[in-house]
Amino acid sequence: MTAPDLDPVLLSRLADVAVHVGLNLQPGQDLVLTAPVDSLPLVREIAASAYRAGAGIVTPLLSDDDIARARFRNAADASFDRAPDWLYRGMAQAFDSGAARMAVAGADPMALAAEDPAKVSRANKANSLAYKPALEKISTFEINWTIAAYPTPGWARQVFPDLPEDEAILKLADAIFSASRVTGADPVAAWKDHNAALRARSGWLNAERFDALHFTGPGTDLVVGLAEGHEWHGGASEAQNGVTCNPNIPTEEVFTTPHAQRVDGTVRATKPLSYNGALIEEIEMRFENGRAVEARSGKGETVLHNMIDSDEGARRLGEVALVPYSSPISQTGLLFYNTLFDENAACHIAMGQCYSKCFLDGASLSDDQIAAQGGNSSIIHVDWMIGGPDTDIDGIRADGSRVPVFRNGEWAN
Amino acid sequence: MTAPDLDPVLLSRLADVAVHVGLNLQPGQDLVLTAPVDSLPLVREIAASAYRAGAGIVTPLLSDDDIARARFRNAADASFDRAPDWLYRGMAQAFDSGAARMAVAGADPMALAAEDPAKVSRANKANSLAYKPALEKISTFEINWTIAAYPTPGWARQVFPDLPEDEAILKLADAIFSASRVTGADPVAAWKDHNAALRARSGWLNAERFDALHFTGPGTDLVVGLAEGHEWHGGASEAQNGVTCNPNIPTEEVFTTPHAQRVDGTVRATKPLSYNGALIEEIEMRFENGRAVEARSGKGETVLHNMIDSDEGARRLGEVALVPYSSPISQTGLLFYNTLFDENAACHIAMGQCYSKCFLDGASLSDDQIAAQGGNSSIIHVDWMIGGPDTDIDGIRADGSRVPVFRNGEWAN
Ligand SMILES: [Zn+2]
Ligand SMILES: [Zn+2]
Ligand SMILES: [Zn+2]
Ligand SMILES: [Zn+2]
Repeated sequence: MTAPDLDPVLLSRLADVAVHVGLNLQPGQDLVLTAPVDSLPLVREIAASAYRAGAGIVTPLLSDDDIARARFRNAADASFDRAPDWLYRGMAQAFDSGAARMAVAGADPMALAAEDPAKVSRANKANSLAYKPALEKISTFEINWTIAAYPTPGWARQVFPDLPEDEAILKLADAIFSASRVTGADPVAAWKDHNAALRARSGWLNAERFDALHFTGPGTDLVVGLAEGHEWHGGASEAQNGVTCNPNIPTEEVFTTPHAQRVDGTVRATKPLSYNGALIEEIEMRFENGRAVEARSGKGETVLHNMIDSDEGARRLGEVALVPYSSPISQTGLLFYNTLFDENAACHIAMGQCYSKCFLDGASLSDDQIAAQGGNSSIIHVDWMIGGPDTDIDGIRADGSRVPVFRNGEWAN
Repeated sequence: MTAPDLDPVLLSRLADVAVHVGLNLQPGQDLVLTAPVDSLPLVREIAASAYRAGAGIVTPLLSDDDIARARFRNAADASFDRAPDWLYRGMAQAFDSGAARMAVAGADPMALAAEDPAKVSRANKANSLAYKPALEKISTFEINWTIAAYPTPGWARQVFPDLPEDEAILKLADAIFSASRVTGADPVAAWKDHNAALRARSGWLNAERFDALHFTGPGTDLVVGLAEGHEWHGGASEAQNGVTCNPNIPTEEVFTTPHAQRVDGTVRATKPLSYNGALIEEIEMRFENGRAVEARSGKGETVLHNMIDSDEGARRLGEVALVPYSSPISQTGLLFYNTLFDENAACHIAMGQCYSKCFLDGASLSDDQIAAQGGNSSIIHVDWMIGGPDTDIDGIRADGSRVPVFRNGEWAN
């Protein structure tokens, strides 16, 4: 099997956008790049673009679904609680030394669907624990980082199951290029405009300083309290190292930190969630005082329960994000089975770790201060989609008065 | 371009031989596996075999020639003195924690032939320095390790330039499978016999305890003093962690440590040397008191000079190895442009670092003691081939008497 060649101009532009807009890689800065081995054509373009931008050393770490499956099918039971600690520790050291971080998304979302969910969950937990010191440098925005996407065969088959593989890949490539805003002649200018639009939205929300958001829609009646001193972000963001980066290519969301103790009501997913190689469909949760006290799903309920039992913080929210139904990714009508795309097609919430960035003066806050202001902590951060064409959102002020934020899935103003 | 599928039975046997004979991987032991991305079909088999053998975590680190070239063509000048220190440091930590090490050889030997040799040499030196702490654990045999080979398209094109690529790959695969002794029904038994034969040769040399070897042949009249307390090895070897492994698949050599101050005379290469992506042909060196005081080559002389100028030890010998002209790899008549194969087709010497293993009770010797007994140290270890059909070797005893070791390229007894 050979994958079809993608448009070389668009592929090269996507690499340039990932390096210059996504990372804003600085001269002399190292880059740690994780990617599925199937995304090698993009990885090569990214490496070239990064070196042209003056990168110190680009270190690609390529993963392979077949090798992952070889583990689940053959390894001794004890192996599933292990992780390559030395590699994750090394990544944390690289970030400490100033390296930037890029991930290429696009691995087959169903790669591990046939494997034992208990083993997958244990392995994932072990990896999350080992990765925590490195991931914290990302979630606290110590360094500039970004995620971009590549249409691997496994992903394309999943998104377009009825098309021949080559056609599916090219169609997914079109969706990626378009959502990543590289189809126009000047992608950097397009991103500048897009970032300005997102900044206007987050600016309005920061000026309003709502105490909570009230989501209503089919199966959903949820009040999400916002953390004390929360700050909304969207688009470009300045990392603590002073570099302004775009952490997601594409991105359509504005997002902030909910209050881990002040989430109440019921909420129903509007899209399936692809997690750990399995699909969780028709999620419904009920929250009391911030904690998910009930969690059901039509499919993948074991995976869902394993996920929210990862640790105490896994049952509480670490992010709430607003995306209009008219956003370009939503308008494709596709389910991407990939958080980078699906979370940018709908309003969403995330179980688990919050971003300290989403607090006023967040970089100066200690973990205890963040927790005191309502910021959640966990080894996981899993977004799931709760917005659709019928979603209404009210902003609730501290005095109890209400302001329309979304009506019928769109910004109310 | 798609590479042809190799015989799945032989590929799986090669993986099993690499894991069980090469590494002798122990239950629960982690594995750090470096490989060219083009060798993915073998890497997948190795991962499965390692997990079946009870591996803890297998961490594949896949490299790509295109990315390497992207660096040399695009990177800022300062980048060529940099290396991913965090990754090499991590590998050393993995070995300290008990991980085994496997490398899959087979990258295109000419991958960097068109790049600036000065930049290639600087980058290689930076990598060698960063890798040194990890490499020392290999060169001192702290852990079990091995190298096996895979016929990548780039390598196959180089070995069989006149064949269509698919045919070249299949032919190189045949040579690898055959030299790696996996074509018979019981490869493990074949390796047991082969290891016994090599042990008989090294046993005789250890009983003789020669003071020096005298190589003569076309262009060669070289006396190689042997280190005090040197020990010959060949085939299977017990690492300090107690695991008996076969560090090279294939292997045909018996080898020991020369005396870094007692090598004198002239020596001519019998095969080209592929080094850092360039070809060095018709090497001639003259040694005085162990040091290469003259070094010429018909092609690649700049690369040769950069190599022996890597550090002070790079001009002295760290290994001398005996391989009969009738050995199976030699009999293929092929130049493999790959040390793993070419060094097992001819008697050879190596510039640079010695193996502490090649001393009696070597694991208990300090660096200073090894140096005092004549062991060389360097950031490089580069084998080059000096044996052929006309090679004669005399063993010289401490009393000056001589014993025929090789006559006309073959063992004299
Ligand atoms: Zn989000
Ligand atoms: Zn999120
Ligand atoms: Zn050797
Ligand atoms: Zn050697």
